[in-house]
Amino acid sequence: MITVDEALSHLFSLVSTLPEELIPLTEAAGRVLAHEVQATRNQPPFAASAMDGYGVRADEVALDAKFKVIGESAAGLGFDGDVRAGEAVRIFTGAPVPDGVDFVLLQEDCDRFGSTITITSDPGDNANIRPAGADFVIGQPIAAPRRLTPADVALLAAMNIAQVPVRRRPDVALISTGNELVMPGDTPGPDQIIASNTFGLKALLDQAGAHARILPIARDNEASLAMAFELAEGADLVITIGGASVGDHDLVGPVAAELGMEQAFYKVAMRPGKPLMAGRMGKAAMIGLPGNPVSAMVCGHLFVLPVVHAMLGLPAGRRATRQARLTTDVAANGPREHYMRARVADGQLTLFDRQDSSLLTILSEANALLLRPVGDGPRATGDQVDYIPL
Amino acid sequence: MITVDEALSHLFSLVSTLPEELIPLTEAAGRVLAHEVQATRNQPPFAASAMDGYGVRADEVALDAKFKVIGESAAGLGFDGDVRAGEAVRIFTGAPVPDGVDFVLLQEDCDRFGSTITITSDPGDNANIRPAGADFVIGQPIAAPRRLTPADVALLAAMNIAQVPVRRRPDVALISTGNELVMPGDTPGPDQIIASNTFGLKALLDQAGAHARILPIARDNEASLAMAFELAEGADLVITIGGASVGDHDLVGPVAAELGMEQAFYKVAMRPGKPLMAGRMGKAAMIGLPGNPVSAMVCGHLFVLPVVHAMLGLPAGRRATRQARLTTDVAANGPREHYMRARVADGQLTLFDRQDSSLLTILSEANALLLRPVGDGPRATGDQVDYIPL
Repeated sequence: MITVDEALSHLFSLVSTLPEELIPLTEAAGRVLAHEVQATRNQPPFAASAMDGYGVRADEVALDAKFKVIGESAAGLGFDGDVRAGEAVRIFTGAPVPDGVDFVLLQEDCDRFGSTITITSDPGDNANIRPAGADFVIGQPIAAPRRLTPADVALLAAMNIAQVPVRRRPDVALISTGNELVMPGDTPGPDQIIASNTFGLKALLDQAGAHARILPIARDNEASLAMAFELAEGADLVITIGGASVGDHDLVGPVAAELGMEQAFYKVAMRPGKPLMAGRMGKAAMIGLPGNPVSAMVCGHLFVLPVVHAMLGLPAGRRATRQARLTTDVAANGPREHYMRARVADGQLTLFDRQDSSLLTILSEANALLLRPVGDGPRATGDQVDYIPL
Repeated sequence: MITVDEALSHLFSLVSTLPEELIPLTEAAGRVLAHEVQATRNQPPFAASAMDGYGVRADEVALDAKFKVIGESAAGLGFDGDVRAGEAVRIFTGAPVPDGVDFVLLQEDCDRFGSTITITSDPGDNANIRPAGADFVIGQPIAAPRRLTPADVALLAAMNIAQVPVRRRPDVALISTGNELVMPGDTPGPDQIIASNTFGLKALLDQAGAHARILPIARDNEASLAMAFELAEGADLVITIGGASVGDHDLVGPVAAELGMEQAFYKVAMRPGKPLMAGRMGKAAMIGLPGNPVSAMVCGHLFVLPVVHAMLGLPAGRRATRQARLTTDVAANGPREHYMRARVADGQLTLFDRQDSSLLTILSEANALLLRPVGDGPRATGDQVDYIPL
């Protein structure tokens, strides 16, 4: 058995950053920027008014001063001329500030009569002008890698980057194994259950930026498993679920080995999820997850998500943890890292009483995995502990 | 001017929960469950082995005890018969526990020779059996409304709910207004800039579960705006950006009114984003956002996201806040709620020096909006403050 950290570093060595592709800006949110992009223009491209009002010369601004309005600068169509002493230009938010103007009076601070305005309230010191390039200038970078947020998408638009270089989504093939499984919507026999792991994992991995596809269930025989691996062709990552334990029907390891899988490890010192295997299988990385539903999903969070992140070019590492305070005492932990299902609210972490790795109802109610390090001593109510948000 | 809370309660009165639709399980993650669903089966459907090993009678379990292996119970195909004194059945994880068996010996605790096993290690007290229905029983509910997580999707699969009743996605039409705008990829004139707000908002709203569509830019004339409103036909929510201020070219209010918009409010006591308007326009709700990029996105977070949540049947209310500690002093706030761009790391909130509402570079670096309530006094370094995560 190896540690969780050793398993992760094996896993990272099995994959590499995927190539980039250009996608339309409307599809960029949530994707990972592949290389630095640079603004193709200045923003604003000209000194722009920050308010609706009148552009004048700052040295003429005083209460009761009068100006003659000689034209208008609107957003999209500026005033083409000089503004001289005693003159003003009607100007709107975002419009170019004309030559000669270095102050924008708020319209609320002026009275207008015909083509004459008078300053009727103290206009203050703020010139209400946004200098050219105040937001960004040509060549200003957005650094990669970076998972693009809605605000990033707005910024890319403003920079006129209509096509965005992002990492291709990892193609992940999900194979559940076992004679006991039928697909949702099917009618199970008396000894059968419904395949659930592939559905939960697909949701998890798709949210993380992968493209996961659910393959037909592989039965507990070599031909069926071999067929499933064949259908996985083209995947960057092949994930099997179940059949990786020590039972006589656990054929994933042997069949994968026959198909050329070079095993990197088998068994990790953790709970739930000890029987985890991984290796390289042709062009794909392969991870064998345990078949217990909670083990499969926990290993999805702990191992598969970081692997997906690595393929997307994001920093390779453990899932980030947060801190909360225990609402109960917990006993000392043993020689395996333990990830206990819990609910965090208002900084307080409450463990579920039932921690069996078959209980999807509990996992569905949980929003956190309490991390118990190897050999961690007993912890008391109120202790600050680390957890992974789900 | 009305308060942020008043604006929100007006907004909630403009929309109603959308109808439900049935979708395939593979598309359910992130969608909002429309009504309670119930398990159609027990899980496990039978008492199931939690380990690979041998099923025996608990009262015979003792070190050195011997059993005759009379058959096998595999996952998907149980053992059809009784297990009597002195007998054992080879059993695998997830397989049905045969009649007569109430203890599963771990295979690591036994030696097998031919069809005889001997207990060679202390098997402990754990029977390694999961009772029927331990995870869920027929009729057990998943309560609605609920935004479905990957674990929920796995649970729905296990319950054999292959089609999931969810709220229809709100159809949101996004109209940016202004002669100064061109679409990303176009070549702007010297007085023009690139439309960015619709792209940022689409990303934000799509992530929240809406289906946002970007309409053609409306120019600063009545015909163009009227055409844009016409293209919004069928939307649940029409959002305009810009043109809602007091400038001569701000036509959104007048044109919408001509088209029958019943205005619920105009102007909210907040920064950034004061010139916010909303109303009812035929079958759709209409929100007019300010045109400054940061104002538009902040109002998207503060107002549009809660409205989308309400349409999805989720509880209607303000965005949830978290707490962090200030890394600098901040001055007292005035009569408008102020949402200041900030970066939170390790529980520390650092404000950006530049808070101008035109700065998308700052918004893109920000991951939090510091919430300054109306009339909030000065705050000192180290004070605990509320923020909205971005």
